Amino acid sequence: MSSKPNTPKGTRDFSSDQIVKRNYILKILLDSFKSFNYSEIQTPSFETLTTLTGKYGDYEDNLMFKIISSGEKIKKADIDALNKEELNKFSNSISDKALRYDLTVPLARYVSQNFNNLNFPFKRYQTQLVWRAERPQKGRYREFLQCDADIIGESSYLQVVESILLCDMIFDKLSFKNLKLRINDRRILEDVAKKIGVENFNDFAIIIDKIDKIGLEEVIGQLKENGLKEDSINILKDFFSLTESPQRKIEKIKNSIDSNSFDELSNIISSLSKTKLKVLEIDFDLSLARGLSYYTGIIIEVSSPESFSIGSIAGGGRYDNLIKVGNNNNLSGFGLSFGFDRIYLILEELNLFPDTINNDKTFLFINFENNISEEILNSITNLRYKGIICELYPKNVKIKKQLDYANKKNFDFVVLIGEDEIKNDSFVLKNMSSGDQVSYNIDTIEEEIKKII
Amino acid sequence: MSSKPNTPKGTRDFSSDQIVKRNYILKILLDSFKSFNYSEIQTPSFETLTTLTGKYGDYEDNLMFKIISSGEKIKKADIDALNKEELNKFSNSISDKALRYDLTVPLARYVSQNFNNLNFPFKRYQTQLVWRAERPQKGRYREFLQCDADIIGESSYLQVVESILLCDMIFDKLSFKNLKLRINDRRILEDVAKKIGVENFNDFAIIIDKIDKIGLEEVIGQLKENGLKEDSINILKDFFSLTESPQRKIEKIKNSIDSNSFDELSNIISSLSKTKLKVLEIDFDLSLARGLSYYTGIIIEVSSPESFSIGSIAGGGRYDNLIKVGNNNNLSGFGLSFGFDRIYLILEELNLFPDTINNDKTFLFINFENNISEEILNSITNLRYKGIICELYPKNVKIKKQLDYANKKNFDFVVLIGEDEIKNDSFVLKNMSSGDQVSYNIDTIEEEIKKII
Repeated sequence: MSSKPNTPKGTRDFSSDQIVKRNYILKILLDSFKSFNYSEIQTPSFETLTTLTGKYGDYEDNLMFKIISSGEKIKKADIDALNKEELNKFSNSISDKALRYDLTVPLARYVSQNFNNLNFPFKRYQTQLVWRAERPQKGRYREFLQCDADIIGESSYLQVVESILLCDMIFDKLSFKNLKLRINDRRILEDVAKKIGVENFNDFAIIIDKIDKIGLEEVIGQLKENGLKEDSINILKDFFSLTESPQRKIEKIKNSIDSNSFDELSNIISSLSKTKLKVLEIDFDLSLARGLSYYTGIIIEVSSPESFSIGSIAGGGRYDNLIKVGNNNNLSGFGLSFGFDRIYLILEELNLFPDTINNDKTFLFINFENNISEEILNSITNLRYKGIICELYPKNVKIKKQLDYANKKNFDFVVLIGEDEIKNDSFVLKNMSSGDQVSYNIDTIEEEIKKII
Repeated sequence: MSSKPNTPKGTRDFSSDQIVKRNYILKILLDSFKSFNYSEIQTPSFETLTTLTGKYGDYEDNLMFKIISSGEKIKKADIDALNKEELNKFSNSISDKALRYDLTVPLARYVSQNFNNLNFPFKRYQTQLVWRAERPQKGRYREFLQCDADIIGESSYLQVVESILLCDMIFDKLSFKNLKLRINDRRILEDVAKKIGVENFNDFAIIIDKIDKIGLEEVIGQLKENGLKEDSINILKDFFSLTESPQRKIEKIKNSIDSNSFDELSNIISSLSKTKLKVLEIDFDLSLARGLSYYTGIIIEVSSPESFSIGSIAGGGRYDNLIKVGNNNNLSGFGLSFGFDRIYLILEELNLFPDTINNDKTFLFINFENNISEEILNSITNLRYKGIICELYPKNVKIKKQLDYANKKNFDFVVLIGEDEIKNDSFVLKNMSSGDQVSYNIDTIEEEIKKII
């Protein structure tokens, strides 16, 4: 094949410059998670199909990257299923594992498996790659980093308050301003749906979840098509159009649907009103549904700044039935997930990465002879032990070529130790941006270099 | 299914304690790579099959984890191949990508793809997971971290010298003592093979590569079975039994086989003799072959300490034909790879992890009331901004239960701000290891806590 090699669709390489920026975001996330006393875990990149499937929804199950079973096992391929075009059944006959689709289901497996060794509430963070066979688009890839912080084993509303404080801290440290955090409770949404005569809650939720993308009118249209009556539509329209404070919205909706699912949301809003949020503005949004089927209670979502139409940059919610321990017990969890790539994209476009993100000074040692002297090798080693970034040009080529390389690779300084310098026990330090070059005694090399880094 | 959920065969979860230790090793590797001015890249977890296959050898190609093509593509399954038990052909008909098997072949793809934007010599490091469907055993997993540093685009022997200095620095910083680094040159091995009448060099290399595991006698036996004559065996035995210094071995073998493949090895040995290696002892070992088929010149390997029989802990070599640029050009590369898991295992067993590896102090705020006060939430937030690790117990349960949790999770301190404390503008700081508790003015909380972290 003479075609140019490439990364698979929807995946990316990262260069050193990009990694420095990614690490800047990652450090803010990790430091913040740590300061809330979440502890880190890591899980394998793939999980058994038993662990993964049936947790997210059918649509999501079809987006998993399945791995072909090794060795003889693929002889069991279900040709019959293939002929009947039951593609899922066919692929399951030759696969017993898949790349993880998110970090929550692997966490659920981890907690079940290690239940007896964990202390609850168990607070964990995890920043690892996940894979989804989706159509790639701006800010959406097939391999991407998820950054999650979850609390397992308690269902206090205070966990939601703390998770929102964590969100606020992270977006503040990343220099965001004025982000909207929308909050809802699936139980409230279900009560509303019941009240207005919705027959299939899942279909209903999937439609209203699209309000961000397609607008209220289009959503209303789809609900009508789906058989929702004029009266019900009007009630819903009224609810969705409320613009009061979260607490006032809660009162209005609560009064008209006679539901007792408002306590937790009300406590959260009241508790948050006592804190000084730096970035987030809290909005109770009854139209927030969130896609994944494992959510059972409070759900939250932080939208990207208004000028960006790339969806949410953080989100999460309560899941009460995902973590099985023993035969009939479930542990409740509340999780928060940060959209790393979208955050990166926004920081880039808003110019929010600090200028000082990479301040390391680099030194190129010019190679003057084929047989590099003991002194030079040992000097370089010594400097490297002190954390000073040194490169020795690997070949004795013309100095011009070596200086060209220094220029192209943006070395800050070049060190020259030629025949004359060796005779005089000296070295020359050339500043590549000013062009200045000064000679020093070789014994002071560490000292001189430390002055300028 | 009521069976206990588990990680897939050969894969592992990592707890927070393990991650702290892994990060300790990783930081030493990264700092060292950086000090040599390697720059980091990251590549996707999977690559196209075109990129991966045919580079490592047939045995290795069969150990790749292939990913089932998404959507309709699997309809193209080659049933005929399946019926003929051509399993590789069958799996290739439903897969176009696989998890990466190492970091070198993805690097080769990266360099070809970005050739025009890179400056050569291009020095890169990469620490990412790789996957191999091997039988798991001690220190060997199906998912593991590889830590590589490669130099592309120059073939100077000085690169090998520098790579060995890098090895020495890393193992020194990790507190290893007295490790053997074996060095050989595939070109020398080929000349020897030619000299003694070996017909198939690959088979020959595979057999002698096993000397570490099965011993010299067994290797000799297998070579005889393979048709090698008595005279040739005797020459080989002599060569393998030399115990002199590397330079003397080179002279002896060179004199008896009339080869001009010794220059590079000789330069490396001579150059290294001028440096002060802290950990590594260099040995020219003609029996070193290394498995992967892409090596073409100098190869090196650092053995695990003698009491461990888990193979090498670092290795690498020269590959001249792996990186295609344009139609007929290849770029030479020299790479080094560190066996992260084996290093971890040895540090653990030799007790070489520092005691002070995790010195972070942690603070649990006791929850006295359902409706946490503004002051407490804001105090905690403020401390967290300063990097102090604080947890607020998420529920107002009995203090004994909260203190139990503090004990089990090894909190260093507990902060109590109950009704009395709020009245007096004070807080109580309880030292969990001594049991001491002292009351302070609430305004001094940051100051007092900073004194003890």
